[in-house]
Amino acid sequence: MLSVRKGLCLTVFALSVAIAPMAQADSHGGAGAIKYRQAVMKAVGGHMGAMATILGGAGGNMADFKGHAHAMAELAKIAQNVFPEGSDQMAGNTGAKAEIWDKPAEFKKVLAAFQSNANALVKAAESGDKGQIGAAMGALGKGSCKGCHQTFRAKQ
Amino acid sequence: MLSVRKGLCLTVFALSVAIAPMAQADSHGGAGAIKYRQAVMKAVGGHMGAMATILGGAGGNMADFKGHAHAMAELAKIAQNVFPEGSDQMAGNTGAKAEIWDKPAEFKKVLAAFQSNANALVKAAESGDKGQIGAAMGALGKGSCKGCHQTFRAKQ
Repeated sequence: MLSVRKGLCLTVFALSVAIAPMAQADSHGGAGAIKYRQAVMKAVGGHMGAMATILGGAGGNMADFKGHAHAMAELAKIAQNVFPEGSDQMAGNTGAKAEIWDKPAEFKKVLAAFQSNANALVKAAESGDKGQIGAAMGALGKGSCKGCHQTFRAKQ
Repeated sequence: MLSVRKGLCLTVFALSVAIAPMAQADSHGGAGAIKYRQAVMKAVGGHMGAMATILGGAGGNMADFKGHAHAMAELAKIAQNVFPEGSDQMAGNTGAKAEIWDKPAEFKKVLAAFQSNANALVKAAESGDKGQIGAAMGALGKGSCKGCHQTFRAKQ
């Protein structure tokens, strides 16, 4: 993972040179959409792990919890757009199950819950009330991570 | 990595049950601080990869770029606090080199540059000007990721 990060930095630098004029980036199906979704989920996992570590008292500072919560709210908003048609298991290596596109109404509810749970976490973090923060983290972890993955994601 | 995420969700859920009353989380040295730092860097890598994928035109939506940029600015602020004394290679598995603590003035400059580069990326993203966005991504990727890692991080 660490060498991937280094490669990423070089890629970003190379991009900055190469993207003038830059390609218009819009919704894409296929492998690129999967790559993007996995980067978004990596960020989700990073923030979730960071918040869990702060809450568990093992590391980090409670003062920084809010920053992660705000970032999670941004990611929950972005998550609404990371499952375009054609970014399924036919397009590349992804755990995203066909149910995502086969049951769009049900999946939309799950995505909406992710957003409302993340927004509730921001409110709890702003309140500074540790009971509220713990409850909001539980709702996000159980209701959104676990709730979505057990139905819409292939076991890894 | 995927099973780690699932484990994380369960951990978060378990935490929500267990943390009332919650331990006070403040700055920590040692393994917990390393774990927290690695979660923060995972989030940095996720957002960086997501933004690079959008800019390269492979996936995602330009409209979501701003959200990642804001999250990166939160992370750059948080990054100022993720290298407490005692979170070095003596405390656990980390690529963080002794130079971080041996050359504090130099390292402080690098952390400050991360924050200013991330804030500049937010401004560029808000402007919507693709040339500015590309230049700001280059400054962040070269000046902060690469610039810090080549001096303060052991080769992995």
